[in-house]
Amino acid sequence: MSDIWLSTLKTTTPQEGYELAIKLSRMAVKLTQPSAEIRQKLREDYANNADSLTAVSSVVAIHFQTVAAANDHWKDRP
Amino acid sequence: MSDIWLSTLKTTTPQEGYELAIKLSRMAVKLTQPSAEIRQKLREDYANNADSLTAVSSVVAIHFQTVAAANDHWKDRP
Amino acid sequence: MSDIWLSTLKTTTPQEGYELAIKLSRMAVKLTQPSAEIRQKLREDYANNADSLTAVSSVVAIHFQTVAAANDHWKDRP
Amino acid sequence: MSDIWLSTLKTTTPQEGYELAIKLSRMAVKLTQPSAEIRQKLREDYANNADSLTAVSSVVAIHFQTVAAANDHWKDRP
Amino acid sequence: MSDIWLSTLKTTTPQEGYELAIKLSRMAVKLTQPSAEIRQKLREDYANNADSLTAVSSVVAIHFQTVAAANDHWKDRP
Amino acid sequence: MSDIWLSTLKTTTPQEGYELAIKLSRMAVKLTQPSAEIRQKLREDYANNADSLTAVSSVVAIHFQTVAAANDHWKDRP
Repeated sequence: MSDIWLSTLKTTTPQEGYELAIKLSRMAVKLTQPSAEIRQKLREDYANNADSLTAVSSVVAIHFQTVAAANDHWKDRP
Repeated sequence: MSDIWLSTLKTTTPQEGYELAIKLSRMAVKLTQPSAEIRQKLREDYANNADSLTAVSSVVAIHFQTVAAANDHWKDRP
Repeated sequence: MSDIWLSTLKTTTPQEGYELAIKLSRMAVKLTQPSAEIRQKLREDYANNADSLTAVSSVVAIHFQTVAAANDHWKDRP
Repeated sequence: MSDIWLSTLKTTTPQEGYELAIKLSRMAVKLTQPSAEIRQKLREDYANNADSLTAVSSVVAIHFQTVAAANDHWKDRP
Repeated sequence: MSDIWLSTLKTTTPQEGYELAIKLSRMAVKLTQPSAEIRQKLREDYANNADSLTAVSSVVAIHFQTVAAANDHWKDRP
Repeated sequence: MSDIWLSTLKTTTPQEGYELAIKLSRMAVKLTQPSAEIRQKLREDYANNADSLTAVSSVVAIHFQTVAAANDHWKDRP
């Protein structure tokens, strides 16, 4: 994958940081299973299973920790 | 989702920080499974399963770590 | 839940910090499954299953990390 | 439990820190399942299951991170 | 394994850091299961299972946290 | 176990740090299941299961985070 999809961890707001965390969590899946078709099928599985959704949320939480640290937890925001 | 739901990680008390951590843990689920109806059904599953609840608690714990760091662990509170 | 149950992360000793970590890990369960009766039933499940207990211990470990950081790891204790 | 079992996170060596991490991981199990007899039975389960042992090791890893931080990663050791 | 495969955690961009995190997550698998043939077979399993992919993504997230810290979260980038 | 197996978290290179993280992840298993014979049998299980290998990799990732911090992420290396 030669696309540039991650040039900075800086975001303006915590919410954008959260959205970046979601992107980061999905990208590992994409790089491991490159077929969009298969990923779409798998989505049916995890989007309808409570534990799968919790696991997804767990990965987002770890990435959000990283993104928050990269932004000094947006402490300077007014 | 264009709503602003996360404008700061700052909270007045640790307890409010904990509540924010819960919100953060649920939001990834909401963004992955947008249907409120399906989420309500899934809630029946995980709210009645010990391991599912522990997994939910684990995600909250990760987010609480982030929120606590963003608030300097509320160190200046008397 | 309008009760105040978490006003500070400060504890006098590491052991009290550990007890707070246990409280923090249980509170997410309580807030997700408010019925004390159901929680009591679920307790039978996880208290008698090795993997469930390990999972519980994992959540405590994450919270203990947060509480320890909030107390500077109790470094100033004699 | 009124015993004092954790008065400091300081240890002389990393290895003692690792042993403390194991103690910390077991204590949450003990406090959740106080019966030594049941814990002994459960031990048969997880000590003979690869995934259970990996999960135990995961909890130890989180606690070791905390203990290492409490000891400044034993940086001044010769 | 006497090859040098990890000489630095420094990367020029966050994206290269993410790629390093993926490498780090795979290397533990490689060192635990040295047979490329078996790993290839297992790949069929996890690349087609939603929860397996989420678990893989979780490991990447932990390593990305480490790599990001090693690069001061690439804060000096313009 | 009276052997000294961990006297420092310092390593010369990140790769040696990664190898130490693997050692740390295995040691908790060893201390929980002291029988080398049983561990060897269990190895057959997890070394041939994708999810088990991912879980092992997850523990390594947590320990690598600790070892990297102990070495200031090997920042002064050229």
